[in-house]
Amino acid sequence: MATDVVPGSVGTSASFSLRLGQAIFSSASLLFMSLGVEFYSYTAFCYLVTIMGLVIPWSVTLAIVDGYSVLVKCPIRQPGILLIIVLGDWVLSILTLAAACSTASVVDLLLHADGAYCPTKFCSRYQISAAMAFLTWFLSSASSLFNLWLLPSLWW
Amino acid sequence: MATDVVPGSVGTSASFSLRLGQAIFSSASLLFMSLGVEFYSYTAFCYLVTIMGLVIPWSVTLAIVDGYSVLVKCPIRQPGILLIIVLGDWVLSILTLAAACSTASVVDLLLHADGAYCPTKFCSRYQISAAMAFLTWFLSSASSLFNLWLLPSLWW
Repeated sequence: MATDVVPGSVGTSASFSLRLGQAIFSSASLLFMSLGVEFYSYTAFCYLVTIMGLVIPWSVTLAIVDGYSVLVKCPIRQPGILLIIVLGDWVLSILTLAAACSTASVVDLLLHADGAYCPTKFCSRYQISAAMAFLTWFLSSASSLFNLWLLPSLWW
Repeated sequence: MATDVVPGSVGTSASFSLRLGQAIFSSASLLFMSLGVEFYSYTAFCYLVTIMGLVIPWSVTLAIVDGYSVLVKCPIRQPGILLIIVLGDWVLSILTLAAACSTASVVDLLLHADGAYCPTKFCSRYQISAAMAFLTWFLSSASSLFNLWLLPSLWW
């Protein structure tokens, strides 16, 4: 089948790399945010931690599925499962984008507010965390698009 | 053709309603934000104003195109133009979501910060502006999805 060669769809090594990247970046975002102190005093930071807590298990699970598929050379081709993966990726990428934007804007406000709200050490941590969240969003939407591209050829 | 009955795609009255809603909500968001004072002192608010300045002409133009198509009963069916509309809607909806989230998180921070950062009158304005931006995002992504649904049936 010609559909087997779509790179980045579920069950290929490109998809495995994307999932691995998502897992790494979202874990890094969570760690940079939660190892600092006082993240729970800002709503946006709590939201980022919550969303990353959703993204990490999702990415790790799909990375395991992809790795298994690559090893046994038997990719998933059920349209129903693929639809769930596409929808899950899409919802999670929107939530990740929202979390990343909120975090970035709050960090920007804390940096430029008049007053010593934000010690430099913590603020650079928050910035790195927001950047990692943006990278997670980028990889997650890429996964969603690649699988969406594959979906119609399976359905009809 | 069966493709003529997809509701919400370019050239239908449903699409005209969506575009009109986008234009109204984005204008309301811009007005609530910019008629208050000091919006230019926060990066997130400036970003929202910039994005709304992009969304308003786009929505108004497409609303005019849709209204004209409905009146002359001759909807656009060129795949190239439809692709541009889908991509434009998609990019603008991502930017709108980012602006809405940034604004909402900054407003939340200003409301709960210790200190009189935010007079109640201005803060409720900012909140309404953020809510309008979220509604704009919702309608814009709906337009993008409806047109994306129509696209494959034209292409092949």
